[in-house]
Amino acid sequence: MKRIQGGVTAANGFLAADTAAGIKYAKRTDMALVYSAYPTVCAGTFTTNVVKAAPVKRDMKIVAKGGNVQAVVINSGIANACTGKDGDKDDLAMAKAVGECLGLKASEVFTASTGVIGRRLPVEKAVAGIKKMTEKLEASLDAGTRAAKAIMTTDTVEKQCAVETKIGGKKITVGGMSKGSGMIHPNMATMLGVITTDADIEQKALQKAVSDAVAVSFNMISVDRDTSTNDSLFALANGKAGNKTIKAGTPEYAEFYEALLYVLTYLAKHMAADGEGATKLIECKVLNAKSKKDAVTLAKSVITSNLTKAAVYGKDANWGRILCALGYSGAQFNPEKVDITIEGRDDIEGKLVTKPLVLVKDGMDSGYSETVATKILSAKAVTIIADMHGGKGEATAWGCDLTHEYVDINADYRS
Amino acid sequence: MKRIQGGVTAANGFLAADTAAGIKYAKRTDMALVYSAYPTVCAGTFTTNVVKAAPVKRDMKIVAKGGNVQAVVINSGIANACTGKDGDKDDLAMAKAVGECLGLKASEVFTASTGVIGRRLPVEKAVAGIKKMTEKLEASLDAGTRAAKAIMTTDTVEKQCAVETKIGGKKITVGGMSKGSGMIHPNMATMLGVITTDADIEQKALQKAVSDAVAVSFNMISVDRDTSTNDSLFALANGKAGNKTIKAGTPEYAEFYEALLYVLTYLAKHMAADGEGATKLIECKVLNAKSKKDAVTLAKSVITSNLTKAAVYGKDANWGRILCALGYSGAQFNPEKVDITIEGRDDIEGKLVTKPLVLVKDGMDSGYSETVATKILSAKAVTIIADMHGGKGEATAWGCDLTHEYVDINADYRS
Repeated sequence: MKRIQGGVTAANGFLAADTAAGIKYAKRTDMALVYSAYPTVCAGTFTTNVVKAAPVKRDMKIVAKGGNVQAVVINSGIANACTGKDGDKDDLAMAKAVGECLGLKASEVFTASTGVIGRRLPVEKAVAGIKKMTEKLEASLDAGTRAAKAIMTTDTVEKQCAVETKIGGKKITVGGMSKGSGMIHPNMATMLGVITTDADIEQKALQKAVSDAVAVSFNMISVDRDTSTNDSLFALANGKAGNKTIKAGTPEYAEFYEALLYVLTYLAKHMAADGEGATKLIECKVLNAKSKKDAVTLAKSVITSNLTKAAVYGKDANWGRILCALGYSGAQFNPEKVDITIEGRDDIEGKLVTKPLVLVKDGMDSGYSETVATKILSAKAVTIIADMHGGKGEATAWGCDLTHEYVDINADYRS
Repeated sequence: MKRIQGGVTAANGFLAADTAAGIKYAKRTDMALVYSAYPTVCAGTFTTNVVKAAPVKRDMKIVAKGGNVQAVVINSGIANACTGKDGDKDDLAMAKAVGECLGLKASEVFTASTGVIGRRLPVEKAVAGIKKMTEKLEASLDAGTRAAKAIMTTDTVEKQCAVETKIGGKKITVGGMSKGSGMIHPNMATMLGVITTDADIEQKALQKAVSDAVAVSFNMISVDRDTSTNDSLFALANGKAGNKTIKAGTPEYAEFYEALLYVLTYLAKHMAADGEGATKLIECKVLNAKSKKDAVTLAKSVITSNLTKAAVYGKDANWGRILCALGYSGAQFNPEKVDITIEGRDDIEGKLVTKPLVLVKDGMDSGYSETVATKILSAKAVTIIADMHGGKGEATAWGCDLTHEYVDINADYRS
């Protein structure tokens, strides 16, 4: 398996387009369309929030049936959530508009919206944007990049990733894009994501792969513990690679899963690192917890602790807050056995800035060097390793620091 | 029942003292001692964090026995948490020092520490401070106020409250003080609190009253969802009012409970309002939820939502975030039935700045005036009322806004 350039258009038979429809922003693109020129099997995971946006309610029904879906249309600016029956109507109008232009049924089109809750979509603008996009669909990598840009809200960079692997002698590509910066919490496919692949795979196997990979990637990141009403992850597989249809439980499935997991993990980490106002990625690896479930609970507790997030922002090795966050997580452990180590990398996929530093040994101060700690905490990506010495459970979660800019952004989001 | 001046020294037979022991701060008082001149029955509630500070571990054993406790000694600056066996030794040394000076056993002295985790207490300074304090114990209201100041860390004002009531013809006083500003989360007696009363009450009845009242006061506030290693609430009742001993389940118990609840709720709201960096109190009342438990879950979810907290700071009536926080709380409800109303008060116990404003009707925008919303959100105390129209469960929770100053304080707490 190797990383390649591009995102949603990297796989064979996928096209994309973007446009500035004027949904809310005046001077930027705000709609994206991803299209498979060939029939697909589809999968998806969605928000667990009781309050679900109009598109989420419709998409969930489509995924439950698991049939052909050849297009995903996304707008940013307005979330089409808490908009009642009018919102449902607006959402269906978007799907129908895509369908009419591309010869698909509305049920063959996924829709997604992101932005302010409670406002109605200017549906005529959206439909006009859809028409424009269907006329300029392109298979170029650049079209994929532009689509990834168009779906951003408070994101500062677009997120996309693609990998290539061989399965049964055939070259298979898995690509994807996502957006997400605020309202991010480990409780399902955080924000919006679209995965495209030319692999030939059974629908059930695709859904299983997506659900399993989301559990250890998208669901392990948090920016602010707020789970959105619109979180959606879509996956489309069009089979153009010509491989033998992949079934769950086979070696081919394992290879496909590895590729999918790489793309989802890459996107997840980059979403966490681009959390609203963030200056760095915080990764928490929990080792030797009582169980896998405990490890997940502990890792999430550390990366969601406001006090830990603010301390990392301040380059302050305040390990008491880390131990405290482990302690109130709900998982049981012996505090007197815990070791905490930190590592710093010069970039998300970069190399260590210096040797790992043990802050806590047996639940107490290790007598570490504050100078080295500050150096590590000044790095672009900080890893906190908590060894619980109480079992074999392991988990990794990702978040970001809590900064002045987070408050700036969120104290004045709507204006 | 009526509110009176004072705090821990308001009730008959209680004295207090404070001193600048130099534990961590150079130019302020950092130790407090509360003393009952007469034997008491005691009660307490403590942090649920797996990681417990040395004093918490010792105090919990004392409460489990429920015997006489005549003194509470508190230091701020260093938390004596994650300090191993040395920390236990230091803590016992503090209790012993109090005991020697006042003729009490160590098991008749509660200890509490608050501040940085992981550092050892300068125990000689603490013991010297204790000696000084035992020599200048005073029953004056001012001594109580000074004690409330000495236990502050990042608090900006001291918190104390006292009420007077008549039970069985006898005047009874309940007073208290607390501190708490960061590391506050509804998961037990947040931070440190000391309640003193001259009521004559059975130990079991006192513990029941404290536990029940803490559940709807201290445990319903949150500044940052971080539950400390040191949270402790102590209650001492010395019986000097001369009333007939209060037993649980009697009308006298109900009257005592009302007074205690008033003091605890007052302290809780003032702790929330003085949350680190906060500019205002946020109160969330949930009405007509499916159950009491759901109402608690919903109310806590709103006041702990970083996005809601930042929006209130920005005076932005971003009700989508409130509805979203209700939605991901874990409680079930019909989003299309929810009404959300806001109220603003000119002070925590103040009066409305204008009529309540309905933001959301049946889960959708009510078409409210943004000008009025901004006026309400500019008030010192903002109440969010969420009517779920789904049952009879009610609950109220308190928090504060998320501000630049919160980040300032917590990005650089140790230095």
